Amino acid sequence: MVTVDPKAGPKYIYRFTEGNAQMRELLGGKGANLAEMTNMGLRVPPGFTVTTEACMAYLASGRWPEGLEEEVEDHLRDLESDMGKRLGDPDDPLLVSVRSGAKFSMPGMMDTVLNLGLNDESVRGLARQSGDDMRFALDSYRRFVQMFSKIVMEVPSERFESKLDEYKKRMGEDAEDTDLDASDLDALLGDFRAIYREHVGEEFPQKPRDQLRLAIEAVFKSWNGKRARDYRRQNKISDDLGTAVNVVAMVFGNRGMDSGTGVAFTRDPATGERVPYGDYLPNAQGEDVVAGIRNTLRLHELENLDPKSYGELRKAMDTLERHYRDMCDIEFTIEKGKLWILQTRVGKRTAFAEWVMAYDMLEERLISEDEALLRVDANRLEQLFKPVIKADVKATARSIAKGLNASPGAAVGKVVFSADEAEEQGQRGEPVILVRRETTPDDYYGMIRSQGILTSAGGTNSHAAVVARGEGIPAVCGADGIKIDLTSRSFSANGTTVAGGEFVTIDGFDGAVYVGKLELEASKLERARRGDENARKEKIWKAFARFMGHADGARRLRVRANADTPEQAQNARERGAEGIGLCRTEHMFLGEERVAAVRQMIFASTREEEEEAYAQLLPLQRDDFVGIFRAMDGLPVTVRLLDPPLHEFLPDLTSLAVEVALAKERGENVADQERVLGKVRELHEVNPMLGLRGVRLGIVKSGLYAMQVRAILEAACLVQKEGCDARVEIMIPLVATREELRQMREELEPVAGEVLSREEVELSHLEWGTMIEVPRAAVTAREIAEVAEFFSFGTNDLTQMGFGFSRDDIGKFLSMYEQRRLLPANPFVTIDRPGVGRLMRMATEEGRAANKDLHLGICGEHGGDPASVAFCHEIGLDYVSCSPFRVETARLAAAQAALADATTGKRDV
Amino acid sequence: MVTVDPKAGPKYIYRFTEGNAQMRELLGGKGANLAEMTNMGLRVPPGFTVTTEACMAYLASGRWPEGLEEEVEDHLRDLESDMGKRLGDPDDPLLVSVRSGAKFSMPGMMDTVLNLGLNDESVRGLARQSGDDMRFALDSYRRFVQMFSKIVMEVPSERFESKLDEYKKRMGEDAEDTDLDASDLDALLGDFRAIYREHVGEEFPQKPRDQLRLAIEAVFKSWNGKRARDYRRQNKISDDLGTAVNVVAMVFGNRGMDSGTGVAFTRDPATGERVPYGDYLPNAQGEDVVAGIRNTLRLHELENLDPKSYGELRKAMDTLERHYRDMCDIEFTIEKGKLWILQTRVGKRTAFAEWVMAYDMLEERLISEDEALLRVDANRLEQLFKPVIKADVKATARSIAKGLNASPGAAVGKVVFSADEAEEQGQRGEPVILVRRETTPDDYYGMIRSQGILTSAGGTNSHAAVVARGEGIPAVCGADGIKIDLTSRSFSANGTTVAGGEFVTIDGFDGAVYVGKLELEASKLERARRGDENARKEKIWKAFARFMGHADGARRLRVRANADTPEQAQNARERGAEGIGLCRTEHMFLGEERVAAVRQMIFASTREEEEEAYAQLLPLQRDDFVGIFRAMDGLPVTVRLLDPPLHEFLPDLTSLAVEVALAKERGENVADQERVLGKVRELHEVNPMLGLRGVRLGIVKSGLYAMQVRAILEAACLVQKEGCDARVEIMIPLVATREELRQMREELEPVAGEVLSREEVELSHLEWGTMIEVPRAAVTAREIAEVAEFFSFGTNDLTQMGFGFSRDDIGKFLSMYEQRRLLPANPFVTIDRPGVGRLMRMATEEGRAANKDLHLGICGEHGGDPASVAFCHEIGLDYVSCSPFRVETARLAAAQAALADATTGKRDV
Repeated sequence: MVTVDPKAGPKYIYRFTEGNAQMRELLGGKGANLAEMTNMGLRVPPGFTVTTEACMAYLASGRWPEGLEEEVEDHLRDLESDMGKRLGDPDDPLLVSVRSGAKFSMPGMMDTVLNLGLNDESVRGLARQSGDDMRFALDSYRRFVQMFSKIVMEVPSERFESKLDEYKKRMGEDAEDTDLDASDLDALLGDFRAIYREHVGEEFPQKPRDQLRLAIEAVFKSWNGKRARDYRRQNKISDDLGTAVNVVAMVFGNRGMDSGTGVAFTRDPATGERVPYGDYLPNAQGEDVVAGIRNTLRLHELENLDPKSYGELRKAMDTLERHYRDMCDIEFTIEKGKLWILQTRVGKRTAFAEWVMAYDMLEERLISEDEALLRVDANRLEQLFKPVIKADVKATARSIAKGLNASPGAAVGKVVFSADEAEEQGQRGEPVILVRRETTPDDYYGMIRSQGILTSAGGTNSHAAVVARGEGIPAVCGADGIKIDLTSRSFSANGTTVAGGEFVTIDGFDGAVYVGKLELEASKLERARRGDENARKEKIWKAFARFMGHADGARRLRVRANADTPEQAQNARERGAEGIGLCRTEHMFLGEERVAAVRQMIFASTREEEEEAYAQLLPLQRDDFVGIFRAMDGLPVTVRLLDPPLHEFLPDLTSLAVEVALAKERGENVADQERVLGKVRELHEVNPMLGLRGVRLGIVKSGLYAMQVRAILEAACLVQKEGCDARVEIMIPLVATREELRQMREELEPVAGEVLSREEVELSHLEWGTMIEVPRAAVTAREIAEVAEFFSFGTNDLTQMGFGFSRDDIGKFLSMYEQRRLLPANPFVTIDRPGVGRLMRMATEEGRAANKDLHLGICGEHGGDPASVAFCHEIGLDYVSCSPFRVETARLAAAQAALADATTGKRDV
Repeated sequence: MVTVDPKAGPKYIYRFTEGNAQMRELLGGKGANLAEMTNMGLRVPPGFTVTTEACMAYLASGRWPEGLEEEVEDHLRDLESDMGKRLGDPDDPLLVSVRSGAKFSMPGMMDTVLNLGLNDESVRGLARQSGDDMRFALDSYRRFVQMFSKIVMEVPSERFESKLDEYKKRMGEDAEDTDLDASDLDALLGDFRAIYREHVGEEFPQKPRDQLRLAIEAVFKSWNGKRARDYRRQNKISDDLGTAVNVVAMVFGNRGMDSGTGVAFTRDPATGERVPYGDYLPNAQGEDVVAGIRNTLRLHELENLDPKSYGELRKAMDTLERHYRDMCDIEFTIEKGKLWILQTRVGKRTAFAEWVMAYDMLEERLISEDEALLRVDANRLEQLFKPVIKADVKATARSIAKGLNASPGAAVGKVVFSADEAEEQGQRGEPVILVRRETTPDDYYGMIRSQGILTSAGGTNSHAAVVARGEGIPAVCGADGIKIDLTSRSFSANGTTVAGGEFVTIDGFDGAVYVGKLELEASKLERARRGDENARKEKIWKAFARFMGHADGARRLRVRANADTPEQAQNARERGAEGIGLCRTEHMFLGEERVAAVRQMIFASTREEEEEAYAQLLPLQRDDFVGIFRAMDGLPVTVRLLDPPLHEFLPDLTSLAVEVALAKERGENVADQERVLGKVRELHEVNPMLGLRGVRLGIVKSGLYAMQVRAILEAACLVQKEGCDARVEIMIPLVATREELRQMREELEPVAGEVLSREEVELSHLEWGTMIEVPRAAVTAREIAEVAEFFSFGTNDLTQMGFGFSRDDIGKFLSMYEQRRLLPANPFVTIDRPGVGRLMRMATEEGRAANKDLHLGICGEHGGDPASVAFCHEIGLDYVSCSPFRVETARLAAAQAALADATTGKRDV
């Protein structure tokens, strides 16, 4: 019986029979599931779980928390009495495994130590109890020494592996570890302990209780290991959770051919199909499967080897799937024909599989439609539309290297080795794959011109990976089989050499690298989206169509798109956009036929010259708007009046200054160029982001916004007369004070009114509003709302000004900031809740308080980021607006946010 | 009797007997004071006041508020019965004056209409009642027509004046208006009415009640006239106050030589001396004094003309001064030997006079010490330290032109006509006065190199005036007697021509312009401050010394200075600074001997090279700090670690690019230059304000801040060993997240600790804190305060980022923004309360809530602006820090803010 002194503080240990699946916070996912399965009646080895609270208490103080030692001892004694064995008993020793288990499955933490409890004495007892199988006992002991040394004491595992290889080589070229006999293993153990002594500076611990204490401490400490911290950062997991430690009585899969170990998935995690899936390795312990030292069997082959165990396993799989109502990933061991379930969790799956599974489970009535919708990850939806290597090509192609699937999608291009080449060839329209050891911020300009990126170093959070995902460029990173030789401008992999300029194909879904041009095709979902009838028969499309329909009914947030052209508008509408939340008008000042008029507008020295320029631009811009209003017939279009500073329409100061100086030096006539240079100098700004742009330009360059408003209204009238319904929202950017907006409206509304009365048209919807993108606008939203009909949060600028980060310049420190965790997350990807988010919340609440009819949206790039969409839902915006290709993502994320409100929150098993 | 229907809404009119001086909000200053004087028993003509509420109701609806018409009628009838005359009576008409009167005295609103009630009939009655003085009656009538036309109907007054001149000329070259006889005036009246008819399109109104109604409406409307609005904006007076209208029975100063009108001050408004001061004009109405059509007499000359009235006036002056407990400005009229007081208010005075008067009144026990302190204007204190033209020189010098006293101080310099010349000569050390019609933002670089600025156009709120005041440069603006001829590069004024390069002297205190170099001297107060014993005998010094002593006892806010060198620190300390709130370290990276090391630091390709550079900089910077700590012995010094981006220490990109391109073109060896250019390009930022600077630099350029901290601590130890008390506060700039500050402290505190233990020194005060200058830092102050010992608001940057205004670029639109009132005030001068101020308040409250020991200050330029100091007091900061030359201003403002808390608020009579 466990005895806990009531004065001793919190309870730090739970037996499996005391826990359940809901206790993940305290027991970790593994411990909670072991408890759950124990209580379900599945055959789980007995054991107990040291709580995450014990871990955090240890990490906070650097000492074992008071009472923990006694609790461990109590529970050990209970376990000994349950099993009828004692730890370290030279006759019949109890052996245990020690495993970490945090709330969220998390690589990078201390993994598993098996066979703990073995020492020079108890190894003999183990042999005795296994029918005098000394070979088995010694093999278990050497595994324990090896694992304990590596995982608990951080002795480099290569030392042990090469020693083992030495022994195997003596047996012959193809010898396996099973070929070593007891005396080989005994000698090997001597060598292993010598390695331990050499590295640790003392003898391998012989007392099982010391072994256990060290192992538990190592698990605690591994919570703060670098890889674990990086993983948490990448996956936005709190540092304050801590890990639990599971101590479980050992069962042995390495006791002969009637034993073995395996992993089973209740459905196929790659395709989502409802078939059992997994691996089985006879006569082995769990780490052998992971290490891949022998080829595993496919799970169904177990049916022939051990039909009884297989049947039991299938039954357990069904039980678990029905119990957890999701696909489960199960670790099991068969010891002398007896099946033990060692672990289960809801299994990871591909983006494709999660849609198919959710659809199937919904059809099977295992889950509800709401639950199904919450089962798919909005962050991964875009992947399903990315191009893939044609299935039959892929099936037969042989990859030359394999890296991490750092950014989804397949890509084909010519190999280049520098950002310069990538930029130069990319601009010429050549498809290129940028191949580098790793990338730096200085390579950015070349990366964005590439079809794909391939690096030989760096993980899924390396610079290359982060940029590639951000830009939607397929990437394979850390393909360490690739050796780049910059002097010969080639790389080699697995014996193949590829020169610069040769074609390669990379598969960002699985990290494979191929020589040559492999044929790509649109993904099934993309083909279906485009109307391909065959593709529409696929389950992935059925799932997508059904879930998106359900999402549209479930969400409260409307979804609009950012679109500047009729084509983009059309595309957005097809993807379900319910309006345009941001139509930028910058590009309407670009293009050959407009350059002259724009120059004239900028250089005008009289009011007349300026008006002439506007007169030239007006019909061109009107045509631009006509196409957009037609495409969005019946849906609102928010047009932002010109935002960037005028110097963006002129040449770069430094280049032009050099050009003029050189021409002068050569005695050329440079009068014209000098005039331009003079203007460029005059308009030059030290900090253009904070300069004469947005509404400031509208105020100073009187007439500019009036021309734009005239073009918008004339276009709206024209489209209206065609029988369409043009719904116009005019947005003034960069407002910082109420007066700016009030005076601009005072100036522009009569211009609009004049067009409408001249054209004798009435619009069903004409509103005037502003971006909230300057921090002061957020802080004084109450005042501004009095003169606005809508707010649209410009979260890009709000983030830039809120943090004081220029996106153009942040590259110099952003990666260091992410690495050192100086930022909670990249604030340009996900809204920074405590800072920028708080400003948004203030502006929303106070804006609405001042003007109950105010409607609010967001048009920064955050509008397509699921976490940010959830935040927008939470603070009560009316809509989000995002890139057209993210409209579905936003629709889904909005629905999930609404459902999370209504149900218990995120799925959490 | 006035009858008011209780259901008719608010009471819109008060008789003088019903009001008092406290009712300025409702009755305006003039009305409240007329009522006060009436009730004091002074001889004031009877009348009534239409309230400011009536004005605002009229302006809101565009119609006379309900009930007002009836109230006017009731009060008119009362007035008629009081006076025993009726308005428009052809036998004995009542005449009234109509005058505006807002809460604050405010030029630009409708002034005065006298003699209202005259028409073609009643003019005869007036003549009869004046002893058949038809000439007097007709003169009164023509004055009324002229004033009514101009002021109520906006007929250009030149039309009337030139017509009057025509008539006078017929009388002879030097004829005055008094030379016109009745028949002349009759004929003139015919012409005046014709002018009226021509401009207004109808006959001059003959019904007195119509005249009154139009006059009252005109007063109402003048509240929103452009000049009035501009004045309110400049003087930060709310638009919502409205103006009252005073209707007063007429008395006549133009009824012969025993009549007259004048203005009296109870003390000299220029010097503050306790002597009566003012002007008197016999046989004239009030507007003649203002118009200056005849030379006025000095007030004391009235004693000879009319000793009885003079005696009564002196008595009234004493009564009023004692009653108002301040210097009064009084308008009076003598009608046939009978004195009438027409108006009084607390009189305006010079900055010098306000100190002297407050001191005298305190000595006279008229006011308390607290009141005296509230009587002086902290905004004007700096003026008293500005150089002046030597008194004896000034007394005899003849000015060639007179403009507005736009920025105080006298200046001598050579005339230049362009910013280029000003910059070029100014940099050579030549004193120059920039003479322009007006200035634009493009002239800024030349303006700041000038000793003084003189413009021929523009008012006290013109670009030239605003910049000059901001930069502390003396300026005379709008000297319209000056004609600038740019082709001959000269200007002429009053017959004198001054060529470019000649010396002129300007007096920014009174707007005078002199040819030649007039001798300047330090002001009395400045001389006294520097220890001149004679100057210390002056009353202005006694006042200053006494009041500042009292201020230091009264204020709660501590005052520190921003100082970067030992000299500045010493100066600040002499001016009463209680510490340094901002010691910038930028200049410690400049200077010939440091250039090489700084370059090496920037160009370092290895850690060793970089450390070598730091090793060179360390002793130099340590010496810099030693001087500062010595100067501030016993007082805290807040040192800000390096803030600007590194490219500021390298050449300008464009200039260097041109230089290199040209050198290359000429075939020169440019390898070195190209290396520098490469680095400049690499470090170039699009928005340096939002780039790699502040703590970001400290993080990326590991070792830089450590070097600075080492230099600071080594200096502190050295000074401590000399027996001084070095009190060190180390400030990390530009922090946006808690982690930035936490990690920097984690890195730097051990560096400091190492120096202290090596040197075996203990400091009495060593704190670590941050600037709050990024909006996000203000919004997340709760988190940041957990790892900070102090906050210092960097309101320059907080304003830049809060508004999205780059100070370097805002010149392109700031003046237009001020003109169009798009900003509540210049936010770089006075803290923008609703926006930036709100962020500061949040950060203060939430920072303190998270860390009760947190101390808070401000080190932006706002720290020396009285309105901003009051705000800092209000939100509860611990100190303000400002430029050394503003320390006294801040001490005074801080005391006034504290007293305003304690007493009834600002003086308000």
